[in-house]
Amino acid sequence: MTLNVYLSGEIHTDWREQIIEGAKGLDVVFTSPVTDHAASDDCGVAILGAEPDKYWHDHKGAMVNAIRTRKGLTDADIVVVRFGEKYRQWNAAFDAGYAAALGKSLIVLNLPEHQHALKEVHAAALAVAEEPVQVVQVLRYVLTGQLPA
Amino acid sequence: MTLNVYLSGEIHTDWREQIIEGAKGLDVVFTSPVTDHAASDDCGVAILGAEPDKYWHDHKGAMVNAIRTRKGLTDADIVVVRFGEKYRQWNAAFDAGYAAALGKSLIVLNLPEHQHALKEVHAAALAVAEEPVQVVQVLRYVLTGQLPA
Amino acid sequence: MTLNVYLSGEIHTDWREQIIEGAKGLDVVFTSPVTDHAASDDCGVAILGAEPDKYWHDHKGAMVNAIRTRKGLTDADIVVVRFGEKYRQWNAAFDAGYAAALGKSLIVLNLPEHQHALKEVHAAALAVAEEPVQVVQVLRYVLTGQLPA
Amino acid sequence: MTLNVYLSGEIHTDWREQIIEGAKGLDVVFTSPVTDHAASDDCGVAILGAEPDKYWHDHKGAMVNAIRTRKGLTDADIVVVRFGEKYRQWNAAFDAGYAAALGKSLIVLNLPEHQHALKEVHAAALAVAEEPVQVVQVLRYVLTGQLPA
Amino acid sequence: MTLNVYLSGEIHTDWREQIIEGAKGLDVVFTSPVTDHAASDDCGVAILGAEPDKYWHDHKGAMVNAIRTRKGLTDADIVVVRFGEKYRQWNAAFDAGYAAALGKSLIVLNLPEHQHALKEVHAAALAVAEEPVQVVQVLRYVLTGQLPA
Amino acid sequence: MTLNVYLSGEIHTDWREQIIEGAKGLDVVFTSPVTDHAASDDCGVAILGAEPDKYWHDHKGAMVNAIRTRKGLTDADIVVVRFGEKYRQWNAAFDAGYAAALGKSLIVLNLPEHQHALKEVHAAALAVAEEPVQVVQVLRYVLTGQLPA
Amino acid sequence: MTLNVYLSGEIHTDWREQIIEGAKGLDVVFTSPVTDHAASDDCGVAILGAEPDKYWHDHKGAMVNAIRTRKGLTDADIVVVRFGEKYRQWNAAFDAGYAAALGKSLIVLNLPEHQHALKEVHAAALAVAEEPVQVVQVLRYVLTGQLPA
Amino acid sequence: MTLNVYLSGEIHTDWREQIIEGAKGLDVVFTSPVTDHAASDDCGVAILGAEPDKYWHDHKGAMVNAIRTRKGLTDADIVVVRFGEKYRQWNAAFDAGYAAALGKSLIVLNLPEHQHALKEVHAAALAVAEEPVQVVQVLRYVLTGQLPA
Repeated sequence: MTLNVYLSGEIHTDWREQIIEGAKGLDVVFTSPVTDHAASDDCGVAILGAEPDKYWHDHKGAMVNAIRTRKGLTDADIVVVRFGEKYRQWNAAFDAGYAAALGKSLIVLNLPEHQHALKEVHAAALAVAEEPVQVVQVLRYVLTGQLPA
Repeated sequence: MTLNVYLSGEIHTDWREQIIEGAKGLDVVFTSPVTDHAASDDCGVAILGAEPDKYWHDHKGAMVNAIRTRKGLTDADIVVVRFGEKYRQWNAAFDAGYAAALGKSLIVLNLPEHQHALKEVHAAALAVAEEPVQVVQVLRYVLTGQLPA
Repeated sequence: MTLNVYLSGEIHTDWREQIIEGAKGLDVVFTSPVTDHAASDDCGVAILGAEPDKYWHDHKGAMVNAIRTRKGLTDADIVVVRFGEKYRQWNAAFDAGYAAALGKSLIVLNLPEHQHALKEVHAAALAVAEEPVQVVQVLRYVLTGQLPA
Repeated sequence: MTLNVYLSGEIHTDWREQIIEGAKGLDVVFTSPVTDHAASDDCGVAILGAEPDKYWHDHKGAMVNAIRTRKGLTDADIVVVRFGEKYRQWNAAFDAGYAAALGKSLIVLNLPEHQHALKEVHAAALAVAEEPVQVVQVLRYVLTGQLPA
Repeated sequence: MTLNVYLSGEIHTDWREQIIEGAKGLDVVFTSPVTDHAASDDCGVAILGAEPDKYWHDHKGAMVNAIRTRKGLTDADIVVVRFGEKYRQWNAAFDAGYAAALGKSLIVLNLPEHQHALKEVHAAALAVAEEPVQVVQVLRYVLTGQLPA
Repeated sequence: MTLNVYLSGEIHTDWREQIIEGAKGLDVVFTSPVTDHAASDDCGVAILGAEPDKYWHDHKGAMVNAIRTRKGLTDADIVVVRFGEKYRQWNAAFDAGYAAALGKSLIVLNLPEHQHALKEVHAAALAVAEEPVQVVQVLRYVLTGQLPA
Repeated sequence: MTLNVYLSGEIHTDWREQIIEGAKGLDVVFTSPVTDHAASDDCGVAILGAEPDKYWHDHKGAMVNAIRTRKGLTDADIVVVRFGEKYRQWNAAFDAGYAAALGKSLIVLNLPEHQHALKEVHAAALAVAEEPVQVVQVLRYVLTGQLPA
Repeated sequence: MTLNVYLSGEIHTDWREQIIEGAKGLDVVFTSPVTDHAASDDCGVAILGAEPDKYWHDHKGAMVNAIRTRKGLTDADIVVVRFGEKYRQWNAAFDAGYAAALGKSLIVLNLPEHQHALKEVHAAALAVAEEPVQVVQVLRYVLTGQLPA
């Protein structure tokens, strides 16, 4: 059994690397959005032509990024969504809703202080964690039945 | 043609009433979440038994609310998601993602200053508006072909 | 908003009547399996011809009952599954699994002593109750936003 | 043709090993739930944090196990559900219902004395067996057309 | 509960009329193909232009008839397929396969001597009957729980 | 049996009126796009704000129109697509492809000289006609079994 | 591009071998039902226990065969259904209907004298052939664009 | 992550070769229709028998080509549709609609002068480009996050 895991959400800390590193040796294929913030903002206009209007500048980029995001979400068995400390992170919550509607197994990774604000997202999740290592432990258990010592 | 419209998101202003009032006479059926904040927070424990732990208190309520939310989203032709000034509003973005994955027509209603933060949500929308009256105008046009004077 | 509610499971107490009576005045359409135990056991052979072998006697009946059960489950917004005191009740758990796979909102009604044995079923549910009146209260809240006094 | 077979249900005898051993040489990929009873009960709290309340202890575990179970059920061509002598085994019947709703080929393995209680589950099955070796023979026939000597 | 029942297959006896007559008073909506043999054969060319080649003459008609057939099959809860004494009746078996793949409840009505030849069709059915009155009895039982006296 | 028919394509002749008029008395519900060319071009900017760039002007309008178009296509049993004499009519062919992928019954109405260019569209259609009256005759036959005199 | 092709229908001539032989070198994976008539008739009772009643003898076998048939049909890109000279072949037409409802590309292989009786099946097909070599030519063209010399 | 990309539309310039060449080294699998115009027009009659009537000549070919086209569209993550200078290209727009209804990521490649006529197609696209190199850049960015220098 190979698990296909999409790592959605916050792009300013190394949580993805921690999970990927921790899951070494497990039969997991990870995908994620483009995490280079500048490239992600500008990809639309850099490739398809400049837009003077900020809205369309952003829109073109968001649509190009959606090609990758929807591929990742659609192919995933498990979608991990990380909510970080900063920003509004509506894209993370959007991905969680998208994943839920597709019937994906949803794991949410968030700070304790966000618990109340995330209650609707948690209601669709199969696991809620605070630390990346817990996600690794879930993946290990799901694949091997082995619990942390 | 009857349009089934689900009004998701912010519950602290009268935007739903404005849309429903404005759409009088149009063949639209509106649904929405429970907008009584206290009832929405406490419904789980009020009906199914108290929980000392805040997480499970919230969880029970969020799951009961999900019965209504998913019925509304699933039956809708159009999902209008309103992002207001305050709070994190991850439930609104979650509903937008859920609606997008189901292929619903998505209309987003937000403040101009949230434009950049909402770009991924906008990329899945068929209309982006700032005022409730614009949503009414979209509904009128979709049903009757009539544009605002 | 009309809710279509399928009442699955135990057929030896009046829990269905309690819910239907309690929900009077709410916009709910209830369906349920045939609850006449003898008719339910014998319907296959009574209509389609006797079977000397008990297995096929039962099989013919179970297949005829499935016509009603699957219609009820497929059309439902909410599936309430009641586990009672007696019998193995695998049909109840089967219906719960069937409903979960179809993405229905699942409400489980069971005795406290069955909690551990039902944990996988509960994991797919949006509400877990012990008394029929709680199901009525969930339905009332979902439809009207009104909590019990 | 590779068959993906999920082995659901009873975890206290070696029926899974008998089938896997018997099917050696056939083009079958087997998956199954975690069959370590203690790990399966405690996985939620061991990874995601302790719960003083038994219900939520169980709930957290059941949801983590669901990640594996739903992956197994969703990817399967054939779901074999074994009902043993003991316990209520509602999870087995739940999996059978889930598999049936997904249109999976269902094989039920049970004791003769459970025949009547399982009639609704049998009505959704393509094969009903009493011994693991019969499941192996079905798999061999389906893959090679070869019947037992 | 209203049952939508599509009556497929043999068009040379009055079995449809017997069922419709027998089901008077039950909450059933019946649909069926066009049963005027000549109209059914010629509808394509009569409306869309003559074809000198018999194959295309038949093809045009079969495609026009498919508009009605697929509407009936798609909307049905139950598909009754009648195999009569004469002709090859591949359209009846085709409809049965189509209904089975859509997950419809299938009732097969056939002569005893066709039992072996229909075994694959029967394997997808929830009821197998020889007389139209049995279909009426199944419909009555499914809707009301009442067995024949 | 009520047929829901979406009338897609060319908006410069009165073919829709001819069909609707001709189908009077038949149990058909017709829907269609907004056929006021100017309103259809400008609806986006008229409601949601002006765009200096022609591309985005058009885009905003096309997305608002898509709300109506997709509702019509999704709810339809039959999609009639008319290709007229002028313009490129890629929206008509787009709707035909969209309808085909959703498994709708497709009727194509076109000039004889467009036959070769439409062969891929025809390959997905159940009827190909040259005159609106033929569409009426197909609808009458599908609903009543009656052929033109 | 690999094509997955299911070869359904008649089992008394070597048409499958002709196609498989002819398609050597093409990127095609073929599957088919068990074509050993006796094994196919008796598989149910040989594995799952004898049945004195011919109907249930056949039923048990047909259900076991369905495990293979539905796997083949579900995984296929193309379903080739062959109608031969003899027998009623309702299973072939059933498979054709099943394949059509799943949106598979259907190729029908039949004798010219069966043309009229197969018109409803042909209406769902993308190719109708008389000789196995034509099926090979279709597969070669679809994969390589190469026409027969 | 491997991207499966279907290249639909115009067959008279070397845009496919430019994209395939440009994407060398990226993890992309390309598929496309048969681009030999004569073979594509005649494949039906060349394999399945001549047709004196041009309509059926074309129809037989279009249906055989649909076997390949639908396989390509169904398996694709991304569908690129190119509109060229000449011809009506309704097949291109048809494929775009088909892809949109399946939820594929759509990239449209067209001349600036066709912008207005393609606005409904653009409304369903995630990227709109004028040059094949831009498609390559989108693919590279989606797979690697790398923007053009």
